[in-house]
Amino acid sequence: MRIHRKRLEEAIETLGRIGATSNGGLTRLALSDEDKQARDQLVAWMQGAKLRVSVDRMGNIFGERPGAEALPPVMLGSHLDSVPTGGKYDGQLGVLCALEAISTLNDHGVRTRHPVTLVIFTNEEGARFQPAMLASGVMAGKIPLEDAYNARDRHGVRLVDELGRIGYLGAEPCVPRPMRAYLELHIEQGPVLEEEGLSVGVVEGIVAIAWSRLTLRGVQDHAGPTPMRIRRDALVAAADVVRAVRAIPAQVSPETVATVGRLEVSPNITNAIPGKILMSVDLRDPSDEYVTRALELLDRAVRDAAAREGVEYEIEHYWRVSPTRFDPGVVEAVERAAQAVGGGYRRILSGAGHDAQYMAALGPAGMIFVPSRNGRSHCEEEFTPMDDIEHGANTLLLAALDLAGTA
Amino acid sequence: MRIHRKRLEEAIETLGRIGATSNGGLTRLALSDEDKQARDQLVAWMQGAKLRVSVDRMGNIFGERPGAEALPPVMLGSHLDSVPTGGKYDGQLGVLCALEAISTLNDHGVRTRHPVTLVIFTNEEGARFQPAMLASGVMAGKIPLEDAYNARDRHGVRLVDELGRIGYLGAEPCVPRPMRAYLELHIEQGPVLEEEGLSVGVVEGIVAIAWSRLTLRGVQDHAGPTPMRIRRDALVAAADVVRAVRAIPAQVSPETVATVGRLEVSPNITNAIPGKILMSVDLRDPSDEYVTRALELLDRAVRDAAAREGVEYEIEHYWRVSPTRFDPGVVEAVERAAQAVGGGYRRILSGAGHDAQYMAALGPAGMIFVPSRNGRSHCEEEFTPMDDIEHGANTLLLAALDLAGTA
Repeated sequence: MRIHRKRLEEAIETLGRIGATSNGGLTRLALSDEDKQARDQLVAWMQGAKLRVSVDRMGNIFGERPGAEALPPVMLGSHLDSVPTGGKYDGQLGVLCALEAISTLNDHGVRTRHPVTLVIFTNEEGARFQPAMLASGVMAGKIPLEDAYNARDRHGVRLVDELGRIGYLGAEPCVPRPMRAYLELHIEQGPVLEEEGLSVGVVEGIVAIAWSRLTLRGVQDHAGPTPMRIRRDALVAAADVVRAVRAIPAQVSPETVATVGRLEVSPNITNAIPGKILMSVDLRDPSDEYVTRALELLDRAVRDAAAREGVEYEIEHYWRVSPTRFDPGVVEAVERAAQAVGGGYRRILSGAGHDAQYMAALGPAGMIFVPSRNGRSHCEEEFTPMDDIEHGANTLLLAALDLAGTA
Repeated sequence: MRIHRKRLEEAIETLGRIGATSNGGLTRLALSDEDKQARDQLVAWMQGAKLRVSVDRMGNIFGERPGAEALPPVMLGSHLDSVPTGGKYDGQLGVLCALEAISTLNDHGVRTRHPVTLVIFTNEEGARFQPAMLASGVMAGKIPLEDAYNARDRHGVRLVDELGRIGYLGAEPCVPRPMRAYLELHIEQGPVLEEEGLSVGVVEGIVAIAWSRLTLRGVQDHAGPTPMRIRRDALVAAADVVRAVRAIPAQVSPETVATVGRLEVSPNITNAIPGKILMSVDLRDPSDEYVTRALELLDRAVRDAAAREGVEYEIEHYWRVSPTRFDPGVVEAVERAAQAVGGGYRRILSGAGHDAQYMAALGPAGMIFVPSRNGRSHCEEEFTPMDDIEHGANTLLLAALDLAGTA
C-alpha cells in the first residue's frame, strides 16, 4: 500500500496558494484571514474523506477516522500557520501528508483497530502570538487557557478575539486526550539529510529551547548637537549584545545555536539617538545543562554591555522547554516504516520545536523528517523535492498503520 | 521695549497641548491631524495680530506685518512639526517667540521700515518625510517641488496628498523670496549653554551633515536547526556597523558625531535568522572635509562587516549639506541685541540642521539659541527655563527691530 503521489502534489499546490507571496513563499499568520481560508479548505477535504470533524476551545481541528475498536486514536498532525515571508512546506506538509495517509487507508478500505485522527494545531510558529506551540501547550496542560486567550499580537489584538472572528473558537475542551500515539511529519529545516543524500529522518527527540526578551533603556537625544562623550545609546549596547550572542555557541558546545531574531528601535528615526531597544534571544542545545550555561553567558554579556554604555536593562527568560526524547516504540515503528519504504534514512535530532514536543508529554510520540534544500526554512526559498515527500508520506502511512493495527 | 512674558508662556502651554504625550512630551508629525490643529491655532493667532496670512505650495505659512516702505521683509520663523515622542520646545518655541516679538511691536505701535514676516516651515524634522527641512529646501531651490511632493512616509502616503488632506496645499509658488534677513530662535539641543550658565547662543553657523541609508541582505533561515557555521545573519553584520559607526568620531575629530538612529529587521521574529536589515547613518562635523573622511570610514566599515558575515549590501549617501556660515551682519545684530537684553550669551555653532541653513542661501540669515536642560532634545524630557526663553525672545525682538529699522 502506497500513498497517491499526484493527489498529494496537487493538494500541496492548492493549499500553497492561500497566503502565497510573489516570490514563491507564504505569509499565513496564525488566525489571519489566510489561516481561516486554509482551515476552511482542510475542513472541506476532511469532510470529503468522511472524517468526523470537531474544533476545540483553542481552535485546534480534529478529523477522526473511526477504528474497529473503542480505543484511543493514533493522531497524525501538524500546523497551517507560517512565519511572515515563510515557505510552503513548514507545517502544511505534515497536515497534507497525514490527510493523504488517511485517504490512502480509505482507498484501500483498510479497517484499523485504533481510530486514526488528523489534528491541526493553532499558532505553532509563535510568529504572531508568543510563545510558539501555544495550542499544543494548552492541550498538554503546560500553558493556562486564559494566558493563551490573552496573548496579544504586536497590534494588541487578543488571540481569543481572533479565534472568534475567524469562526474557529470551538466548543470542545482543550485538555489532554488519551492517544495510542502522536506522529508528525515535518521538514528538517537543517542541512543534514540533504548533505547525506537521504530522504527520511527518524526523529529521536528535540533539543532544549530558551527564549528571552531584553529591554535596553538609554537616553533618547538629538543625533546632531549631542557630543559623543555624553551619549547613552541603547542601540550601541544592543549591538554589543548581538555580537555576544553570536559568540555564545563557541563557548558552550558545537551543537549550541544562538540567535537575535527580533530587534525594535525607539523612536527609530535617522536623527535621534535610540532611547529604547526591545530584542529577543533564542538559545538551543540538545542538553538542558548547556542551555543553562548559555543563559548564564547571555546574562553576563547583557550586564557588561549595559554597563559599558551606561544604559538600564531588564531581561526576562520567559519560555523554556526541556529536551524531548521520543517514545522508543514509536521511533522504532517509524524506522521500520522507513526501511520498508526503501528510501535512504537516518536517526536524527530536531533543532526546532514542534507540537510533537508537548504531545510527547501526553503519550507515545514521534516525528518523521524530510529534507530541506540548502537546509533553509522560515523563508520563501523553503523547498523539499517531491521524491522525498513521497518517501516521507509513505513512511508516515506505514508507521501509522503499524501503531493503529489492523482489525 | 520688552516682550510680554506671561502671554508667551501661555501660548507655549496652549500649543504644547496639541499632540501632547502622557509623559510631558509631544508627538506632532508633519501634516498629521495634530500638525493641522497646531497650524490652525497659529493662523488664528496671526489673524488676531492682524498679520496678512498666506500659504505656499509646500504648506509653508507666512504672516506679514507691513513695513513703512516697500522693502523686502525681515523673516522670523521656525517649524511646528516634532519627532515621535519629542519635546515641546523644538520648533514650536521659535514660532511662538517670533509671534510674540511681532505682537510686542503691535503693542508699542512700532512702525518698522521693512515688513516683519512670521514664517512656519513644513516638515522640518524629516521624521515623517525624508529628508529633513524639505520645504525650506524647496524654497531655496535645492530640492525639486516634485521630489518633495512624492516623498512618502513609512506607510506609503505621499506628502502632497497629506498637504491637501489637512487643507494646507496653498496657491503661492514656493520659490526664493527677496528678504532683508531671516532670523530663527531655537533650542540649542546640546549641553554648552547650560554647562556655562548662559541664556543665549549667538549662532555663527551650522555643521555639515551627511545622511546614508544601508541595506544588508543575509540569508533568512530558521533559528533552531541552522548550524552556526552556515549562517549569514544580516543583523550580526548590522551590529558590526553600529559598533564601527560609534568608533568613527574618535578617528576624525573631537567635534564629529556619528549615529545609527534607525534600524529595521526583516522578518523580525524570535525564531528566524534576520535576512534583511535597513539602517540609517547620520554623520556631522563643522568641517566638510571631516564629513568626507567619516563617510570613507563608514564605507570601509560596511564593506568589512558585510565580508566577515558573507552578506550583500547597498549603501546610498542620499543627503548631504555643507556647513553654513551665517551672515556676519546678522550675527553682529544678534550679538548687539543679546548684549542689550543683558543675559549671559556666547557665540556658538549649531550641531543640528535648521531651516535657517537653506534660508542662508537666499539672503542674510542668523539664529538665536536658548539652553536645553541636560543638553537633551528630540525626547519628552526636552525643557528650557522660562527666564532663558524670555532673554531669547527679547534678543529676537531687538535683533529683528535692528534689521527692520524704524520708520
